[in-house]
Amino acid sequence: MSETPHQTGRYFEHFALGDVIEHAVPRTLGQGDASLYQALYGARNPLFCAQPFAVALGLADIPLDNWLVFHIVFGKSVPDISRHAVANLGYAQGRFLAPVYAGDTLSAASHIIGLRQNKSGESGLVMVETTGTNQRGEAVLNYTRWVMVKKQHRQAASSDAVPDTVWPQPAPVIAADALPLPQADFSAWDIKATGSPLLFDDYETGMKIAHGDGTTLEESEHMLATRLYQNNAAVHFDAHLQSQSRFGKRLIYGGHMISHAAAMAFNGLANLAGYAALNGGTHVAPCFAGDTLYGWSEVLEKAALPGRDDVGALRLRHVLVKNQTPQEGQFALKKDVDAAKQDYADNVVLDLDVWAYMARRRNA
Amino acid sequence: MSETPHQTGRYFEHFALGDVIEHAVPRTLGQGDASLYQALYGARNPLFCAQPFAVALGLADIPLDNWLVFHIVFGKSVPDISRHAVANLGYAQGRFLAPVYAGDTLSAASHIIGLRQNKSGESGLVMVETTGTNQRGEAVLNYTRWVMVKKQHRQAASSDAVPDTVWPQPAPVIAADALPLPQADFSAWDIKATGSPLLFDDYETGMKIAHGDGTTLEESEHMLATRLYQNNAAVHFDAHLQSQSRFGKRLIYGGHMISHAAAMAFNGLANLAGYAALNGGTHVAPCFAGDTLYGWSEVLEKAALPGRDDVGALRLRHVLVKNQTPQEGQFALKKDVDAAKQDYADNVVLDLDVWAYMARRRNA
Amino acid sequence: MSETPHQTGRYFEHFALGDVIEHAVPRTLGQGDASLYQALYGARNPLFCAQPFAVALGLADIPLDNWLVFHIVFGKSVPDISRHAVANLGYAQGRFLAPVYAGDTLSAASHIIGLRQNKSGESGLVMVETTGTNQRGEAVLNYTRWVMVKKQHRQAASSDAVPDTVWPQPAPVIAADALPLPQADFSAWDIKATGSPLLFDDYETGMKIAHGDGTTLEESEHMLATRLYQNNAAVHFDAHLQSQSRFGKRLIYGGHMISHAAAMAFNGLANLAGYAALNGGTHVAPCFAGDTLYGWSEVLEKAALPGRDDVGALRLRHVLVKNQTPQEGQFALKKDVDAAKQDYADNVVLDLDVWAYMARRRNA
Repeated sequence: MSETPHQTGRYFEHFALGDVIEHAVPRTLGQGDASLYQALYGARNPLFCAQPFAVALGLADIPLDNWLVFHIVFGKSVPDISRHAVANLGYAQGRFLAPVYAGDTLSAASHIIGLRQNKSGESGLVMVETTGTNQRGEAVLNYTRWVMVKKQHRQAASSDAVPDTVWPQPAPVIAADALPLPQADFSAWDIKATGSPLLFDDYETGMKIAHGDGTTLEESEHMLATRLYQNNAAVHFDAHLQSQSRFGKRLIYGGHMISHAAAMAFNGLANLAGYAALNGGTHVAPCFAGDTLYGWSEVLEKAALPGRDDVGALRLRHVLVKNQTPQEGQFALKKDVDAAKQDYADNVVLDLDVWAYMARRRNA
Repeated sequence: MSETPHQTGRYFEHFALGDVIEHAVPRTLGQGDASLYQALYGARNPLFCAQPFAVALGLADIPLDNWLVFHIVFGKSVPDISRHAVANLGYAQGRFLAPVYAGDTLSAASHIIGLRQNKSGESGLVMVETTGTNQRGEAVLNYTRWVMVKKQHRQAASSDAVPDTVWPQPAPVIAADALPLPQADFSAWDIKATGSPLLFDDYETGMKIAHGDGTTLEESEHMLATRLYQNNAAVHFDAHLQSQSRFGKRLIYGGHMISHAAAMAFNGLANLAGYAALNGGTHVAPCFAGDTLYGWSEVLEKAALPGRDDVGALRLRHVLVKNQTPQEGQFALKKDVDAAKQDYADNVVLDLDVWAYMARRRNA
Repeated sequence: MSETPHQTGRYFEHFALGDVIEHAVPRTLGQGDASLYQALYGARNPLFCAQPFAVALGLADIPLDNWLVFHIVFGKSVPDISRHAVANLGYAQGRFLAPVYAGDTLSAASHIIGLRQNKSGESGLVMVETTGTNQRGEAVLNYTRWVMVKKQHRQAASSDAVPDTVWPQPAPVIAADALPLPQADFSAWDIKATGSPLLFDDYETGMKIAHGDGTTLEESEHMLATRLYQNNAAVHFDAHLQSQSRFGKRLIYGGHMISHAAAMAFNGLANLAGYAALNGGTHVAPCFAGDTLYGWSEVLEKAALPGRDDVGALRLRHVLVKNQTPQEGQFALKKDVDAAKQDYADNVVLDLDVWAYMARRRNA
């Protein structure tokens, strides 16, 4: 038996500050990906499913859903960045920079911008800025994330080989005037296509919106999704391996929950017209097949966009809870008002902070 | 905490006779929807899966399956018509008016043509005529259905606010000379593509045809399908909610069964070339994941089509039974010959009355 | 009740040596099929998912995965050849002759080249050479397989009606100089797109390569796949029927495992650029939902291709084991070194012998 060549992924000691890792496997997205995404999450926003509607806003075609684009870019980074990750700790400074259409080919690269070995010597934190680009080299998505990655060899924190700690503090929220401006012209936004009269002008900071219907997670669905994104993290697919883990079963890719949260938001935020930015997000607790997800959102901030009277931006918190409706849970996010940042209420599984576009009322 | 804007769906008192409700969310169908539909039901009719075959009949491209079109149109009506439905009671006068191709965008509207409050004061019957149209405004599908819808507020049947009862009696069968004529020219129909020599001329009224293979229903599959159709009825998706229901589990969308019935019919009716009309249908009993469906059909009527010697119409009853083959159940439809209309034999879950096209033998 | 016309499939006595059976149902493959295939198996080879990458090699578009093409062709043959098969016994002389693109329409025909009734009189062996062709009549795939098929009526081996035994012995391996040459020009193969520097030149005969991640099989997924291929063998779909079988549950289509094996091979064989040939294959044991598959490969042979310094061919054995990693199983294929051909090690479920293309290092 000879040596086995094998892709093994990077451990903490394989990351060097300043490195740019060009991730493997460019991927051409097609209309079939849009159909599958539709079947997986049931989104109902006309901007992402009706060509005449998208063209009426001045776009070339139906854009692909923001989170499909996110997962495709994220998936490319998994083998290089988070194959040996213990935890996906946070996101920041995510910007959706340009629409992606069926036929576009996405590539991704990550810049290593932070490193910090843990005192245990068994793992370390890695912060990357990941950029997705299309076949013309235009950036379509950019975001920062940080993960805790295992070390291949345990090593005292005092060792010479430990990298200097460099740990940026990305701003927790993208300022409204730093948001990308949408290419679409929202003056043609037609509320008949969504069935809801509620526009940017009708939402106020502090509003909490229950999104109604729950959806129960299935093994087949999260695996179909995660393979569609070419995300090959073994924890999502391998029940034999996971039977030995502390959960005893397959974990569902966190991004699968983000997509459910966004699709659910149509009930109550029907005129939300795509996402501008991902300020941050916490996967509070793991989800498993059989869990039922419910969503609610809070309006955190409203902002005009420079030079645009057709569209504004809503900063939203999308929350997912499992096995309990928002009403049953009284919209609780944290255990109590003064709770520490991590001290989430029971059943909360996702806390996502985003900026979304919404058409403004014309000649009100 | 402020008011929550939220789409809540219509209760019985929100319907007014004569209203036309334009349903939300136009949807462009793509080739990916056809592939998913293929994967969900396994249909094998060459007209719907082979471009050269469809083009040889004079069509512009492969048409999308009739029932995919039906479910897309039906799904649009769910939030407006049947979100608070207790039961989907019947269909009538359904006509498939024009082929739909990948790239077409479907919209739907429903005309309220019947209202009848129930004596309990807790619900009422609503009859609608729903029309699906393409991006050129051409009607592609038209059908009548009636549902029982909850009232938001209980109210005596004698109250002033109760609407006058108006309840049309649609004819139970569409007359053969009122069927839409197919656009395809069936003189080029090639039985080598189906593997069956049996054409219109070979079927006789009264024939019963077992469709052979059974298929077992899965949670993932019916949910993928129902989300593909943007049908958001919570009973199909929410196991947490349904655990409190009388069935204790998720119900499968009735249309999912119709599609299985139609796909199964290839065994025995391989040259069936799409549907002309839906005369009526009864979802006799609910289906759940784990149930195995078997199908059989009965030829109810044969009809020539005016001016067409290339194609005829077969009126068929498609029956689905669960967890029992047609042979095991002796093709029983009703409990006994004199049984009342609703008194179906055990295990029957669907009784569908349709008109379908089939090529005629040339110069026999 | 009248006679029921019905497709029943061929029993052993319905096959005649020399017959060519043109299988039913041509099928146009689309980009949606590629997306579904992606979601089902998670393949990551850029040749099959990135248009600019494929075009840079001189191809017209992204080719469809070899095994998708194989399953589509195989599926067409099921109703005619193996509907009453007791076992799918072997493959030989499989050649992938031309790329298939989205938009192409595949048809298939089988030539009966071998017949041998079993002594029991209850079944017989049938060997066919099946060819898949595109809409221009060009052969895209050709392979031999043999199956054991039930007889409709039991009949002594001495009966006059028993066909003469004719049983070809196809060569177990296709010689390297008889391999089809790839249309793609691999001199533009870019290893950045795969993330692996290992090319043809880096592999040596005898190497064993573990493919890492396992994947757990699900009922929904194998049924979606098998219906996508229009393979209607009842054992894959009908839990009611199978509850009476010796396994008590649905069997998974063997081709579903082949596709998982090929997709898994990216870990360790990332620059494998499609398959040239299928020398042979054994489905050693059935697989069921819940089983977790792991893959490993052995390099059996290396070959230059005539007139081509851009690409070589690797003969590989792809092995799948279930519920045990290759490391746990010590890469065992047979029970012991001297074991008989059929005496596989526990947990082995697939033993596939293929030729694959891989780019050669340029100006090394």
